[in-house]
Amino acid sequence: MSRMGAQTFIYDNPVEIAAHVSVAGPKEGQGPLREWFDTVLEDDLLGEKSWELAECKMLTRCVERAEAEAGMPRGSAQAFLSGDLNDQIIASSFAARDMGLPFIGLYGACSTFVQGLVVGGALVSGGFLDNALCAASSHFCTAERQFRFPLELGNQRPPAAQWTATAAGCAAIRRGSGKGLLLECGTVGRVVDLGVTDANHMGAAMAPAVCDCIVRHLEDTGRAAEDYDVVATGDLGWVGREILLELLGRRGVHMPERLLMDCGASMFYREQDPHAGGSGCGCVASVSCGMIMKRVRMGEWKRALIVGSGAMLSPTSSMQAQSIPGIAYAAAIRKNDV
Amino acid sequence: MSRMGAQTFIYDNPVEIAAHVSVAGPKEGQGPLREWFDTVLEDDLLGEKSWELAECKMLTRCVERAEAEAGMPRGSAQAFLSGDLNDQIIASSFAARDMGLPFIGLYGACSTFVQGLVVGGALVSGGFLDNALCAASSHFCTAERQFRFPLELGNQRPPAAQWTATAAGCAAIRRGSGKGLLLECGTVGRVVDLGVTDANHMGAAMAPAVCDCIVRHLEDTGRAAEDYDVVATGDLGWVGREILLELLGRRGVHMPERLLMDCGASMFYREQDPHAGGSGCGCVASVSCGMIMKRVRMGEWKRALIVGSGAMLSPTSSMQAQSIPGIAYAAAIRKNDV
Repeated sequence: MSRMGAQTFIYDNPVEIAAHVSVAGPKEGQGPLREWFDTVLEDDLLGEKSWELAECKMLTRCVERAEAEAGMPRGSAQAFLSGDLNDQIIASSFAARDMGLPFIGLYGACSTFVQGLVVGGALVSGGFLDNALCAASSHFCTAERQFRFPLELGNQRPPAAQWTATAAGCAAIRRGSGKGLLLECGTVGRVVDLGVTDANHMGAAMAPAVCDCIVRHLEDTGRAAEDYDVVATGDLGWVGREILLELLGRRGVHMPERLLMDCGASMFYREQDPHAGGSGCGCVASVSCGMIMKRVRMGEWKRALIVGSGAMLSPTSSMQAQSIPGIAYAAAIRKNDV
Repeated sequence: MSRMGAQTFIYDNPVEIAAHVSVAGPKEGQGPLREWFDTVLEDDLLGEKSWELAECKMLTRCVERAEAEAGMPRGSAQAFLSGDLNDQIIASSFAARDMGLPFIGLYGACSTFVQGLVVGGALVSGGFLDNALCAASSHFCTAERQFRFPLELGNQRPPAAQWTATAAGCAAIRRGSGKGLLLECGTVGRVVDLGVTDANHMGAAMAPAVCDCIVRHLEDTGRAAEDYDVVATGDLGWVGREILLELLGRRGVHMPERLLMDCGASMFYREQDPHAGGSGCGCVASVSCGMIMKRVRMGEWKRALIVGSGAMLSPTSSMQAQSIPGIAYAAAIRKNDV
C-alpha cells in the first residue's frame, strides 16, 4: 500500500493474480511458445467482416475466459483496464461495451498490458477495487492497415522492423490472502527519447526507456537483477535486446544474459521471417499470461520481472519527422505457497 | 482509501488540488468564460510548424505552470496522467518526454481529464504517489485534420456537431492535510452504447453513459444532486444536455435544471457559431481548472461534481459504420476551510 521508491508502487496489501489467459493468432501459434497459449486461433478474422471487429472479438473472448477462470460471474468485474494500438483504442472500448464493464482506457503502446497491471495492482492493493481485469490486444492486420500500408500493397519491410503479433492477454487480479500467484510491485517509467526517427527500428527507440525503467525498479526496490529468475522485456526484438544489454552495462547494472528474455524475440522462430521479432500490445500480454505466469505458478520460476515497453509514435508524428519517445513499465510477480 | 460503492473511489486520505491551470485558444478566449482562463493564446500555432506540435506546446506550458504554482520543482512530479484526442496520444507523450516525467497515458476521449483525476486521486490517496499532475488537451485543428477533413476543404458541419476546443487544463494534486481544495471521490463509468452512429451527434451518443455514471455516483455515495452546487458535464453540448435531462428523469433522478451546466455548452456564445457547443479533452479540462475549481476555491460553490464524458469512436470505426460507445467519469471536489 505504501510507496517505497520514487517510481515504484509496492502492493503491501496482497494482490493475487487469480487467472491469466492468453490467445494467439495462427502464425503466433506456430512459434516456439505455442504450447503455452490457452487458445490458438485457426482463423484470425474470427468470422468477422473487419480486422478491427476480429481484434475486439479476440480480446473479448480472452477477457471473458479470464473472468470465468477467476470464478467471477460474467460482467461482475469492478474495472476493466485495457488498451490497444488502434486509434482511440477501439478494440478495448468496444470490448468494454460488449461486456458492460466499468472501463479505464489506457495507452502505453506495446507496454499497455504491464501499465494496466501496475495501475490496476495499485487500485486493488489500495482498497479501491476488489478485483480488476487487466488486458491488452494487438492484431497484425489492424496494425499494418493503420501504421503502415494496406496489406494488399505487399510492402517491403527492413530487417529491423518488428512483426505485430495477433494476440491478447488478460490477467484477473483481486485482493488476496498473500498466497498463490502475486503481483508484488510495479514501476511507472519515464518517457525517454534519444532521437530515433525510424519507425522500422522501434527496438532501438524503446531500449533507453526500458533501461531507465529497470534501473529505477532495481534502485527503488533495492534488488539486483539476480533476484529475478527472469527479466522479460516486451517487445524489443532481437535488435533492441542487444542495445538494452549494452545500455544496462553502461549504467553499471549487472544483467546476466541468461536472465534476459524478450517477449518479441521469443514469439517467433527466425524461419517464420518476423524480421527483428514480434511486437504489439498483445505480444507481451499473451507471453506474460501464457508462458511467464504459468512458469511462475508451476514453481519453475520463483520470481519474474515483466518490463513492457512502448514506442509512442503515431503515423502523423512519423510523417512530421518527429523522433519516437519510448516508455516502459515493470511489474514483479512471484509465487507464494506459504 | 476504502471503496464505498461499486464504482466509486472514496479518497479517505485527503487529496488536495494544490494548483489548477487552464489555457484556452483565441476563439475560446472570446467566449463567456474568458475571464476564468489563466492564459488565452493569441496564436493557436504557438510559433510551431504543425498543429500537433502546437498542441503539445500548449499542454506542456499548462502543466509546467501548474507544477510551478503548486510549488513543485520542475520535473519533480511523481506521475503525469494525461491524454488527448490525437492518435496514440502524441500530445501527451511528447509533453511527458519534454518534461522527463513518469507517465501514465490515458484515453477516455473528451472525458480524459476527469479519468485522470479519478485514477490519480486514488494513487495519491492510496499512498502510492505523493503528488501527480492530471492533464488533458485538445486542439481544433489537430482534431479536424484527424477526425474530419483538412481545414482547407471548408467542409460543412451539421447543427448537432460540436466544436473541438483549443484548450488544456492541468490539476496538480498531492497528499493533503484535509484543508483547502479537495478531491473527495471519483466514479469510474461503464461504457454505454445505445446505437448512435452519427459522428456529428456525439452529445446523443454520450448522454446515456453520463446518465449511468451520475446515477451510479449518487447511489454509491448516498448523495442527491442537490448535495452539489453544480453538476458540470463535459461535453454534451446544448443538444446532449437536453437528452441527459430526459434520461435522468426516466431513471428517477431529480436533477434541478439550474444545477446542471455543460462545459461544452458554456464554452462559446451561440453567435460564435460552434453549432451544438464545444468538445474535446481540453474543454472539460480548461473549464474545470478555470471556472469550476476557481469558484469552489473562492467559496462561491461549496461542492461541485464534474462529469467528463467521452465518445469512443475512431475514424476507422465510423467508416465501418460502427455505433459510438460513450464513457463517463465523475469527480467530486469541495473546499474545506476548517
